[in-house]
Amino acid sequence: MLEKIYAELDTAYEEMVDIRRHLHMHPEPSFEETKTAHYIRHYYEQLGVDVKHGVGGNGVVATIHGERPGKTVALRADFDALPIDDQKNVPYKSTVPGVMHACGHDGHTATLLVLGKILHMMRHELSGTYVLIHQHAEELAPGGAQAMIEAGVLDGVDVIFGTHLWSTSPLGRIDYRVGPFMAAADAFKIKIQGSGGHGANPHETKDAVVIGSQLVTNLQQLVARRVDPLESAVLSVTSFVAQNPYNIIADHAELSGTVRTFTEETRQLMEREMQRVVEGTSIATDSTAEFNFMRGYPAVINHLEETMYLKDVAATVPGVTEVYDAPAQMGGEDFSYYLQKVPGTFFFTGAMPDGEVFPHHHPKFDFKEEAMLIAAKTLAAAAINYQP
Amino acid sequence: MLEKIYAELDTAYEEMVDIRRHLHMHPEPSFEETKTAHYIRHYYEQLGVDVKHGVGGNGVVATIHGERPGKTVALRADFDALPIDDQKNVPYKSTVPGVMHACGHDGHTATLLVLGKILHMMRHELSGTYVLIHQHAEELAPGGAQAMIEAGVLDGVDVIFGTHLWSTSPLGRIDYRVGPFMAAADAFKIKIQGSGGHGANPHETKDAVVIGSQLVTNLQQLVARRVDPLESAVLSVTSFVAQNPYNIIADHAELSGTVRTFTEETRQLMEREMQRVVEGTSIATDSTAEFNFMRGYPAVINHLEETMYLKDVAATVPGVTEVYDAPAQMGGEDFSYYLQKVPGTFFFTGAMPDGEVFPHHHPKFDFKEEAMLIAAKTLAAAAINYQP
Amino acid sequence: MLEKIYAELDTAYEEMVDIRRHLHMHPEPSFEETKTAHYIRHYYEQLGVDVKHGVGGNGVVATIHGERPGKTVALRADFDALPIDDQKNVPYKSTVPGVMHACGHDGHTATLLVLGKILHMMRHELSGTYVLIHQHAEELAPGGAQAMIEAGVLDGVDVIFGTHLWSTSPLGRIDYRVGPFMAAADAFKIKIQGSGGHGANPHETKDAVVIGSQLVTNLQQLVARRVDPLESAVLSVTSFVAQNPYNIIADHAELSGTVRTFTEETRQLMEREMQRVVEGTSIATDSTAEFNFMRGYPAVINHLEETMYLKDVAATVPGVTEVYDAPAQMGGEDFSYYLQKVPGTFFFTGAMPDGEVFPHHHPKFDFKEEAMLIAAKTLAAAAINYQP
Amino acid sequence: MLEKIYAELDTAYEEMVDIRRHLHMHPEPSFEETKTAHYIRHYYEQLGVDVKHGVGGNGVVATIHGERPGKTVALRADFDALPIDDQKNVPYKSTVPGVMHACGHDGHTATLLVLGKILHMMRHELSGTYVLIHQHAEELAPGGAQAMIEAGVLDGVDVIFGTHLWSTSPLGRIDYRVGPFMAAADAFKIKIQGSGGHGANPHETKDAVVIGSQLVTNLQQLVARRVDPLESAVLSVTSFVAQNPYNIIADHAELSGTVRTFTEETRQLMEREMQRVVEGTSIATDSTAEFNFMRGYPAVINHLEETMYLKDVAATVPGVTEVYDAPAQMGGEDFSYYLQKVPGTFFFTGAMPDGEVFPHHHPKFDFKEEAMLIAAKTLAAAAINYQP
Repeated sequence: MLEKIYAELDTAYEEMVDIRRHLHMHPEPSFEETKTAHYIRHYYEQLGVDVKHGVGGNGVVATIHGERPGKTVALRADFDALPIDDQKNVPYKSTVPGVMHACGHDGHTATLLVLGKILHMMRHELSGTYVLIHQHAEELAPGGAQAMIEAGVLDGVDVIFGTHLWSTSPLGRIDYRVGPFMAAADAFKIKIQGSGGHGANPHETKDAVVIGSQLVTNLQQLVARRVDPLESAVLSVTSFVAQNPYNIIADHAELSGTVRTFTEETRQLMEREMQRVVEGTSIATDSTAEFNFMRGYPAVINHLEETMYLKDVAATVPGVTEVYDAPAQMGGEDFSYYLQKVPGTFFFTGAMPDGEVFPHHHPKFDFKEEAMLIAAKTLAAAAINYQP
Repeated sequence: MLEKIYAELDTAYEEMVDIRRHLHMHPEPSFEETKTAHYIRHYYEQLGVDVKHGVGGNGVVATIHGERPGKTVALRADFDALPIDDQKNVPYKSTVPGVMHACGHDGHTATLLVLGKILHMMRHELSGTYVLIHQHAEELAPGGAQAMIEAGVLDGVDVIFGTHLWSTSPLGRIDYRVGPFMAAADAFKIKIQGSGGHGANPHETKDAVVIGSQLVTNLQQLVARRVDPLESAVLSVTSFVAQNPYNIIADHAELSGTVRTFTEETRQLMEREMQRVVEGTSIATDSTAEFNFMRGYPAVINHLEETMYLKDVAATVPGVTEVYDAPAQMGGEDFSYYLQKVPGTFFFTGAMPDGEVFPHHHPKFDFKEEAMLIAAKTLAAAAINYQP
Repeated sequence: MLEKIYAELDTAYEEMVDIRRHLHMHPEPSFEETKTAHYIRHYYEQLGVDVKHGVGGNGVVATIHGERPGKTVALRADFDALPIDDQKNVPYKSTVPGVMHACGHDGHTATLLVLGKILHMMRHELSGTYVLIHQHAEELAPGGAQAMIEAGVLDGVDVIFGTHLWSTSPLGRIDYRVGPFMAAADAFKIKIQGSGGHGANPHETKDAVVIGSQLVTNLQQLVARRVDPLESAVLSVTSFVAQNPYNIIADHAELSGTVRTFTEETRQLMEREMQRVVEGTSIATDSTAEFNFMRGYPAVINHLEETMYLKDVAATVPGVTEVYDAPAQMGGEDFSYYLQKVPGTFFFTGAMPDGEVFPHHHPKFDFKEEAMLIAAKTLAAAAINYQP
Repeated sequence: MLEKIYAELDTAYEEMVDIRRHLHMHPEPSFEETKTAHYIRHYYEQLGVDVKHGVGGNGVVATIHGERPGKTVALRADFDALPIDDQKNVPYKSTVPGVMHACGHDGHTATLLVLGKILHMMRHELSGTYVLIHQHAEELAPGGAQAMIEAGVLDGVDVIFGTHLWSTSPLGRIDYRVGPFMAAADAFKIKIQGSGGHGANPHETKDAVVIGSQLVTNLQQLVARRVDPLESAVLSVTSFVAQNPYNIIADHAELSGTVRTFTEETRQLMEREMQRVVEGTSIATDSTAEFNFMRGYPAVINHLEETMYLKDVAATVPGVTEVYDAPAQMGGEDFSYYLQKVPGTFFFTGAMPDGEVFPHHHPKFDFKEEAMLIAAKTLAAAAINYQP
């Protein structure tokens, strides 16, 4: 039966490309993707698929009920675009200035829609249930995943699979990883309140530039000294702003940046130690500081059994030439929320284009469209083989 | 004869106040003080005083030739205003939005103009020559003093005296100091060029925030370790600007600030050591930095003999109740240039107003106008007694 | 045949314990283990085994020639002790004050000697050749491995296996890991030459304490900023010595410490960046510094195929209850040199004692002697099964 | 009468030299100067001078009562030596290994003894009372001055004068200074208690070397940012000791050093701010620290009127060729305690030797003995002229 699905997918490849290019030309930023949501809903409605919209926001969920009982398998594709100006020179270039599908979510959506159509077509031959989660707002915290979960998309789901088309992995390769795969990505802000004054009279001030510089230096020590060297963690103070005339000592300064970790333990350690460093530095400099640690997505932690299952399944998929034990990635993904609720795994589908390769979020980002076919077949294989 | 000058000054006090208030209502910022210059020139021309204008810019110089031979004594008053919005509630409030005589230069000018008129009136009784330097642009480097000196205002001058009406010293007090009186005030800029990148990948970047913070910390050590503890020096990094999204590591950062010193040796030491720290930090962090040290005015170094002379003379002036050995000031003044060329001294004339006192450069700054009379008499006494 | 070896090992267990306890009572520090070397040599000579001594120092190598052709398999055991005072309360406690087998090398030696005896006994039934490497001086750089390799111990060797009895892993567990298993452990010294002087006159000095403190702080940034967060690295400045009377500013200071890395690339990065930081800090502070990076052992990088082979073999060994994919260790081992020359793998044999567990190098360190039997059987299985 | 005293002093110069050289050959360290005390006491007793010994320790006080009433003038000379090995090559070299008059206190004593003899001789011609304070233990905190004051040496005293023979000031020069002349010299110790561990596992430790380095860096900021730039202050961390094997992270570290200030306000500021920095740094690093600030002598603050008096008097003394307004010194002196109780002044008597000049406390220190005569005459003039 999987062979039949593969054949149908091959046949529908042209449609997949058309959908992808249509979406690419009409991108919408996170939390504003109403037309895209409508497009998805309409696609399923026309086919007569059971579809819900407005799920946890702009989310759309289609459900395919197989004829026979079985497991409930969720597949997820995100559909938001980015506030980036498309600088590619292709016929399907974005028509919206300043908005672009620079991360391949258009491809994810086309892949899942066409796979959904085929599963629907073949529903009488299938066991189990297939929940197709079209998620909005992956690119912008708090993301769409959490709201969709709260709206019940995982109710009754036994397992979830998701993939990301990956422009820096070669076509034909599936990248899997047991355990931590993508990092928790948190943000922070520190507002230092010193006390300003004339540049000639430092003793009458609490110099916020000096305090901020101490803070940056002391925070850097956390990764080097407080984190287990066998764990990964990043703390980057990306902004330091204290702008004053050349003869006025800074009254206040604002620092902000990001923290990346792979385990909840390290994540909490970083927040707790940052709090400690901010507090101690304030005391040492007789100033005050406001520290905000803004949690982004948690780390994507792939489940052992489901990942090994996916790894084995992927090796059997036509077009897959390599199944690769990939290193973890410091970038974040809100697929993590699904994996906190149900077993599953998230993997990359190699989609490296010919010619020059641009990383995700680059204004010239593009991917090899054949990768969609491989992604669709791998998801199909993972879903169908999962049935008892 | 000094008694007669004092009496004439008393008589002309009303005029002095009128002039001051006129100027106060029509302030002009540094290097743009053309109407004020014209006002001064016109005042002297009407009296028939030998006056030159356009001296080194907007500078105006009047010369009074006494009947008998003697020393050539220069007296200096500056006449530029500041880019500050007048927030006082007085009839003579500035009529120019955003420009204000917030440092008392209007008073200096009124003082010298009226004293000039009286010296001119009495020129047949006087020995020596009196060069009245009305200087533009004291508030903004490179200042007017240097240009006026290059234009020859000190040619043949034997001694120079100058005073500043001082709103935080009580009326009746003359503040003198032998040696360093006001600091050299230099500015600097440091442009750090690191290499930006994603907040999750610090190893692919040269983090300009971290580099800048190291630099601030290391620069602070200079005052503590490189400067003789018996010398005074200040190095304040007043601005630190590296503004980026929370997940983008800083590509570059700009630091700027001020350095204050009292001796040329310490000043050169600071510049040299700053250069060294910037260079070393760049090497340590594999980045580059552009360091600009922008010399402002040198320190005002009062000459021993002339200062002791002024101190003794001041004690005899009517209205002077205290002659005070004042501490040095970290603020700057381009009177320093005159003192590099000819002997002389710069002193403060106490001008503390009744009620609340606002420091110089404050939007509500004002001074006690009676102080102008004391300033005029002290300058007169210094000039007249200097004659053999 | 492996079954027979297992049975012989079971029978010889008492002897293994006796040998281990004898060695434990007569420990010798690295590079001074002449009596131990003689003991090993004598053991083999009495059996008539082909044995060479003085190999690359105190090393001893026995060779067992199987009757039939086959692969040449090397097995390695180290035999040096540590300069630690034995504080255990056991009958076989060290008789040498200040020297102790605090890392289990006595057990390694007993294991291999007895295994050697049995292989020799059964040589007529065996295929292939067995090179039994008794290595001196594992605990002290430059170690004995390199010298023994230069003396030819790996000539003709097809594969090498080694194990470490591990007191913090449970008895019955074999810990394996593909790729980086134990870190490169390098040491460094930095001699800062400032310029001393009276505590009251910092400007006449280059304060080595301040310079050293800057250096420590700046070096900490390397792990946080220069190393890929997905790589592991440690830089610990463990000593800072600048001892002076309370009123004498430090003329010089000595820093020293350790660097741990898992890849040659990161190792070179650390050395290069440390050099850069030392150089830049010297320039910034107008001082000089001597930087020595003393390479210790490289990382133990287990070969993929041989490790997976060992993992599968270990699962069949009597007494082995778990084969564990262990995390990497920041500690070092000179087994790394063998793995740079020939394929192979290094693994831990769980040897956790009953009661309180003390880590390796602790004065009360001990291990469960039954682990030696498991180690011997696992090495035997690895060696015998490797034959075609 | 002063002329007569001068003449007597000239006559007694040989004796002065003899006494000085005797003392120089028999130096005793601070608080152990019993033989020297006995020598002084015996000198006065033989003359029949009213002398007390054991005053506040080894102190000796002689009192000369003039025939007529008048002021009570105290003159002070200290008599302890230093734990330094004499490396001069002179006949009067120290006979005590490791102990040396390396600061000229032998000269101070000889000067005052001979002056005392002459005042005693001439007591019938004198007005007023002369208290000759021979103080022990100036070189070692808490010093002898405080104890002697508590024992009553200043009771009834109207004014005090003291001088230091100064090897870096030319012979014939008297160095005076109104106000702060010699600094308060305090010491401090900081014991950092982190938590040690293996160099490969920083996250299990609190690295005392890193904490100490942060502390040093942060403490350096105090002089640069917290102290008025017109005030002088020095904070030198002179020792940093954390000695460990290269692979053991520091469990604790000890910092120590000195603080120099000229006003009680700045002194308290430094102690308070150091406490703050230590506390804040401990909090930021989750460690503890013990901070001890050990007050040494306060600053020598010369009284205005008495200093101007001394300056005028000195100008009349034979042999004095220059009276110099000297800069303040960062070194300390317990003469400060006397000046906290009674008016007076402390000055330097130029004593630069011919040939190479070695600073005070140098193993080759010496001074020009003629300076003793000038010191004696200046003290005599100060004492005698002070009478009404």
